[in-house]
Amino acid sequence: MTDPRVAGVGLTPFGELSERTGRDLFAEAGLAALDDAGVDPDDVEALYYGNFMGELAEHQGHQAPLMAEAVGLDVPATRYEAACASSGAAVREAVKTLRNGESDVALVGGTERMTNIGTAAATDALAIAADDLYEVRAGMTFPGAYALMARAYFREFGGTREDLAHIAVKNHEHALPNEYAQLRTEITVEDALDAPMVADPLGLYDSCPITDGASAAVLVSEEYARHHDLTAPVAVTGTGQGGDNLALHDRAHYARTPAATEAAEEAYADAGVEPGNVDLAEMHDCFTIAEVLALESLGLYEHGEAITAARDGETHATGALPVNLSGGLKAKGHPVGATGVAQVISIAKLLEGEGSWADEVGDADTGIAHNAGGTVASTTVHVLEVVE
Amino acid sequence: MTDPRVAGVGLTPFGELSERTGRDLFAEAGLAALDDAGVDPDDVEALYYGNFMGELAEHQGHQAPLMAEAVGLDVPATRYEAACASSGAAVREAVKTLRNGESDVALVGGTERMTNIGTAAATDALAIAADDLYEVRAGMTFPGAYALMARAYFREFGGTREDLAHIAVKNHEHALPNEYAQLRTEITVEDALDAPMVADPLGLYDSCPITDGASAAVLVSEEYARHHDLTAPVAVTGTGQGGDNLALHDRAHYARTPAATEAAEEAYADAGVEPGNVDLAEMHDCFTIAEVLALESLGLYEHGEAITAARDGETHATGALPVNLSGGLKAKGHPVGATGVAQVISIAKLLEGEGSWADEVGDADTGIAHNAGGTVASTTVHVLEVVE
Repeated sequence: MTDPRVAGVGLTPFGELSERTGRDLFAEAGLAALDDAGVDPDDVEALYYGNFMGELAEHQGHQAPLMAEAVGLDVPATRYEAACASSGAAVREAVKTLRNGESDVALVGGTERMTNIGTAAATDALAIAADDLYEVRAGMTFPGAYALMARAYFREFGGTREDLAHIAVKNHEHALPNEYAQLRTEITVEDALDAPMVADPLGLYDSCPITDGASAAVLVSEEYARHHDLTAPVAVTGTGQGGDNLALHDRAHYARTPAATEAAEEAYADAGVEPGNVDLAEMHDCFTIAEVLALESLGLYEHGEAITAARDGETHATGALPVNLSGGLKAKGHPVGATGVAQVISIAKLLEGEGSWADEVGDADTGIAHNAGGTVASTTVHVLEVVE
Repeated sequence: MTDPRVAGVGLTPFGELSERTGRDLFAEAGLAALDDAGVDPDDVEALYYGNFMGELAEHQGHQAPLMAEAVGLDVPATRYEAACASSGAAVREAVKTLRNGESDVALVGGTERMTNIGTAAATDALAIAADDLYEVRAGMTFPGAYALMARAYFREFGGTREDLAHIAVKNHEHALPNEYAQLRTEITVEDALDAPMVADPLGLYDSCPITDGASAAVLVSEEYARHHDLTAPVAVTGTGQGGDNLALHDRAHYARTPAATEAAEEAYADAGVEPGNVDLAEMHDCFTIAEVLALESLGLYEHGEAITAARDGETHATGALPVNLSGGLKAKGHPVGATGVAQVISIAKLLEGEGSWADEVGDADTGIAHNAGGTVASTTVHVLEVVE
C-alpha cells in the first residue's frame, strides 16, 4: 500500500459563470488537470465526482457519466453527494481505491452551478443540506444555522464580531493574488463590521458568496508516477471521514463539530502525523465562524482558542499556521461540489512551492484540507505531504 | 482479502407509501437488516446509501447522515447517486472497503419516495437521469428512450410486442408470492398487449411502476462473521462497474448496453466465474426490453437471443435460468434508490434457500444482480455465491 500522488490539477475561474453549462465547466477543469498531469487520458480508470444541487440548479442528476464524457473519458464514473463535502468524499474514495492497488490513475473533481438560479433560489437549494422537516420548514437557512453556532461559541468561549471580521479580512487578502478567486477585493475590519447583517452575528463579509465553478485533479499510484517519470512530489497520505446528526438541534453542542474531530483523528493516524506537524491548512470557511470551529475540531487549536488566531496574525500567510491561502470559501468562492477538490489543489500547489503565497510558506511539507457538509454533519479531512 | 458476507437484510413493502417520510422508510429497512443480521449496531462502521431524486421529491439532499441517524447509527455516511443504479454503487463501495480490511461491518441501503409528487412530476424527476440539454428539453422521457432501444432491437434482431409481453407476464407471476412486491396481480399476454400504449412499442405492462420503498443489508467481513458465529453463507464474490455516454444519441448502438458488459466482465473475473455458472439473476427490468438487453449484455445470452427467453420459459422460476424471481422492477416495484440493494437481497435470500421460489431454485449456488442507471450509462454488477 502506497499513497497516491497528486499528478495534475485544474480549475475554472470561480465566480459568476451563469452562461456556461456544468459540463462545459467540468470539461475545462478536467482537461486542464489531465494536461497538467501529463498522463495519457486512456490511462484514467475512473471518475470520482462531486456535485450537490444539480437536480435543482440544472435539472440534471446522474452527472458523473455526463462529466466523464465531457472530458472524453469512457470510464466508470460515480457521483458522491455529501452536501458541501461532496468532492471531499470523492477524493476519499479515489484515495482508498488507488491505495489498494485496484487502480493506478483516477480523475477526481466536482462542479457546481449556482448563480444561474439567483441568490434566493440558491439559498433555498443550499437548504436541502439541512433537515427539511425540522429545520428548513421552520425557516432555517445556513446563515441562520451558522449564526446559532457563532452565538453558542461566543457564549461558551467569548469572542466578538470583530474577531470574525479579522478572518474575513485575512481571507480576502489571501485571495488577492489568486487568479481563480471570486472576490479579489481588499477589505478592512471596518468594512466587515459595517456591512449588512445577514444573520446576527454574521454579516455579509462573514459569509461565502454564491459561486459557479469546477475543479479536478489527477491522482496516480506511486508506481504509476515512477514508471511514467511524473513530477508528482505531493501525496495524499491521510484520509478521514466523520458523520453527525443532520439537524443542529440533535447535537450535544452547537459550538463544536465532533464529525470533524473524528475525520481528523482518522486522517492524522492514517498519515502518521500529529496536528503539530501541520504547516498549512484549507478549512471549510463557509462562514467565518466555521474556520474557527474547524481549527479547533481538528486539534490545531484548543477549544476556545482559535477565535483570535486571525486577529493575532497566526493564520495569516506570514503566521505560524497559514489558513486558507487560496482565499478560502469566503473569498475564493464556494461552488459547492467543486470545493473539496479545490482545497486539495490549493494545498498540493503550495507544498510544491507553486502558486500565490508559496514564498511566504517556504519549505512547508505537510498540509491539511477540511471539507464539511451542512452544519458539519458530513466531513472529510485529507493530509497531504511532500514525499520526495 | 476475503469476500464480504450478507449477514442480514431488510425491506419495507414496495408500493404507494406517500404518507411516510424517507427517514421513516429507511429506519424500517435498516433496523430490520440489523435485527436480521444479529449484529451489535455499535459494530457498524459506515453507511453506504443510495438515493436518486430526494432533492426533487422531498426537498432533501444530504440524506446519508440523516438516514444513519434514523437507524440510530453515529457513523460516517455517504450518498451515492448513479440514477437508478445508486444503491448498486453503494454496494460496490461497501464491498471494496470490507474486502480491503478497512472495515468489518457496513450497512448498505437506499430509499426513494416518488408517489408523493404524482406520476407526472415523478416522470419529470426521473428524466434528470437523462441528458437535460439534449434529451429532456427535446421531450425525451425514459419510456421514450427505452422504446427507441426496443425498436432498434426489433430492427436488428427481430422480436415482437408479444415477446416483451411474456416478460411482463413472467415477472408478474414471480411477484405473486413476494409479500414486499407492489404489483401482485397475475396478468396474461393479452392483458399486456391490450394495455394502453406508453411509448410504442412499450405499453403499460412493459413499464415498471412508480414506487416508494427502502432496502438495507448488513455486509460483514468473513472474519467478523466467523468470530461472531453469524449465519451468513452467502458472499458477494464479484463486483463490477461500467459507464457510458449519458445521452442515447451518443451511443454506437441503441440495442446494446456495453456499460453492462464491462461491469459484468469485471464482476465475473473478480468472482472467478463464467456466465455459464450463473444459476439465477436479478436484471434491471425498468422496461421489459431492458431485461432482454441485460441478459445479452451480461453474456447470459448471445445478442439477439434473449428476446424469446421468457416466451420459451427459460427465464421462468422453473426454467434453466430464473430471472427476476422477486418480480423484478416490473412487478416488485422500483423505488429507484432502493433497487440495487433490493436486488442483492433477492439473490442472497434465494441462495440461502429462503423466500418465494426457493423450492424451484433448489441448490443454486451462484446469482447475479444487474443495476442500471439511465439508459445504462451507469451500471453495477454483483456476483453472489454460497461459500459455506
